[in-house]
Amino acid sequence: MISFARGVPAPECLAVDELADSARGALERDGRTILSYGPGGGYGPLREWLAERHGVEPGRVIVTSGSLQGFVFLAEQLARGKRVLVEAPTYDRPLKILARLGAEVVTVPMDEDGLLPDELPEGDFAFLYTIPTFQNPSGRTLSLERRRRVVELARDHDLLVLEDDPYGLVRYEGEALPTLLELDGGERVIYSSSFSKTVAPGVRVGYFVLPHGLARELEQVAVSTYITPVLLAQATVHEFLRRGLFEPNLERVRGLLGARRDAMLDALESDLTGSARWSRPDGGYFIWLDLAADVDAAELLARAEEAGVTFVKGADFGGPPSSLRLAFSYVSPDEIREGVARLAALVGRPVAV
Amino acid sequence: MISFARGVPAPECLAVDELADSARGALERDGRTILSYGPGGGYGPLREWLAERHGVEPGRVIVTSGSLQGFVFLAEQLARGKRVLVEAPTYDRPLKILARLGAEVVTVPMDEDGLLPDELPEGDFAFLYTIPTFQNPSGRTLSLERRRRVVELARDHDLLVLEDDPYGLVRYEGEALPTLLELDGGERVIYSSSFSKTVAPGVRVGYFVLPHGLARELEQVAVSTYITPVLLAQATVHEFLRRGLFEPNLERVRGLLGARRDAMLDALESDLTGSARWSRPDGGYFIWLDLAADVDAAELLARAEEAGVTFVKGADFGGPPSSLRLAFSYVSPDEIREGVARLAALVGRPVAV
Repeated sequence: MISFARGVPAPECLAVDELADSARGALERDGRTILSYGPGGGYGPLREWLAERHGVEPGRVIVTSGSLQGFVFLAEQLARGKRVLVEAPTYDRPLKILARLGAEVVTVPMDEDGLLPDELPEGDFAFLYTIPTFQNPSGRTLSLERRRRVVELARDHDLLVLEDDPYGLVRYEGEALPTLLELDGGERVIYSSSFSKTVAPGVRVGYFVLPHGLARELEQVAVSTYITPVLLAQATVHEFLRRGLFEPNLERVRGLLGARRDAMLDALESDLTGSARWSRPDGGYFIWLDLAADVDAAELLARAEEAGVTFVKGADFGGPPSSLRLAFSYVSPDEIREGVARLAALVGRPVAV
Repeated sequence: MISFARGVPAPECLAVDELADSARGALERDGRTILSYGPGGGYGPLREWLAERHGVEPGRVIVTSGSLQGFVFLAEQLARGKRVLVEAPTYDRPLKILARLGAEVVTVPMDEDGLLPDELPEGDFAFLYTIPTFQNPSGRTLSLERRRRVVELARDHDLLVLEDDPYGLVRYEGEALPTLLELDGGERVIYSSSFSKTVAPGVRVGYFVLPHGLARELEQVAVSTYITPVLLAQATVHEFLRRGLFEPNLERVRGLLGARRDAMLDALESDLTGSARWSRPDGGYFIWLDLAADVDAAELLARAEEAGVTFVKGADFGGPPSSLRLAFSYVSPDEIREGVARLAALVGRPVAV
């Protein structure tokens, strides 16, 4: 089975030996701290590193066991039984968490340049959840002009924005755009990211940059949930950073995954021109495909799996029934070419889209 | 400040070098699995090891980031808005979690031999939360006869029992008693433990042995909260076990902490006989002290801190105002002698107790 469903890094992305050395090195350097209970907000030196990177005080950084855990904490604090704005489509896991908390989800439409700021509804919302860069699932990136507009509207309407940015550094071409956090200065924007895509998902090191008051609240929830996060993983990531391994590894990951993105875009161009439209992301893991409106992606998925290729249907992310998400991060360029060819054979006839 | 408040292992208990080697060894052996997303229920080989130890199938073992995290999952599934039985006194963190979930806590009285089974009230309860061995905060251990009675009553009244057993292996003398899980066979008893006291708290590796259906539910909650727990920490503990380091380390910890328990019991005997009653635990971290009923432990604590010694007042665990918890795990035998002498000077006059 060729998996365009798994939005995870290819095994070759994982710097196993360097992380093994970093884990040992961290314990040798700071073992008694790492192996004891510590602050609920995470390993001090990593919080300091992140605080410096984002130009905030360390107390405003909370490191969680993956960023989803932090999303749960934040949603429990802010969103239970409230209304929350999300992009359509968006990452499915937060949608499930919000549903569990009885939050009502209100969607904001997107186009190729990301969410449409002037379609943001007025009213009381716990926050706007957005992934502005190389969005999961669409691969789309919010334009600079719209970033400015979102920040402006957030100020005007006293709207809290949660900017989820796990993919921002995984850029294959083009210039980085300023984050919403940078444009806003951190008054109305909560920023979250993770080392899942830049170091390894298994370390489960995500983090949040928050206003002071909310950072204190989140740290309290963390303490009352698990006392201290797994400092060993956080200290391993910190040691990896400290040893100067982060940037070279990121370059390597960009090279590996950029070639996969290229392979998928080339294969789509060659096999699906006229049958589908797709996003052309400058980074991240995902390409979004829109088929003709009368194609049912669920039905296509069933046939695709019989043909040995799989993907996630767009409806799972709140997208239309004829859309699908293709992840190019996990499979090799050869598998990508073969998988797209199999899909194209199933989609068949060119249609007006 | 001499801390009888910190219920944590002394830094000397932490096998830093062995854990550094284990972390590196685990990554070298199984790095790609450890550094990727994996099952929500924890690192496979560790689940298998625990399953074998407890004589159950691996699917019934869920490894969480410390056992408190698992308690949160379980309480969210079972206890929200329900009634829960707890020992009086009991560990304070679960009480706070239950309060947050709007659960009503109903207490079961204890004496020197643990909770009084025949005082268990009838009615509908989400579960009974008990720490039968070297209880936090009392240091008390449920007698064999009462263990049998609790299991019998659980069956008769269809009562679920959550047996929390983080201290069971940290025994300084006497024979181990069968766990409630062993007596019951795992139908009505959920068992939880952790490597915090036998390896290191900072690894945050706790686990639960559950009936099949509940194990599946908990794994789903884990996936929807953090996708995968920190496999690096769990694999490090597994490597520590695999290398045969667990038992020798536990022997070393027993020696270190047993000497502290002895020092505290000797000091109490010498300095507080006639002024207080206390528990004489065969293991664990804690001694429970009952002063004369007219002594206010909160007021004593304020004076103690001025005198450079601290503890946790029993009322924080649901105990009487004249009670207090002394942890002997963190401070050296010399500090213990000095700290008890300072306390005794404050308690002053011998009283009938």
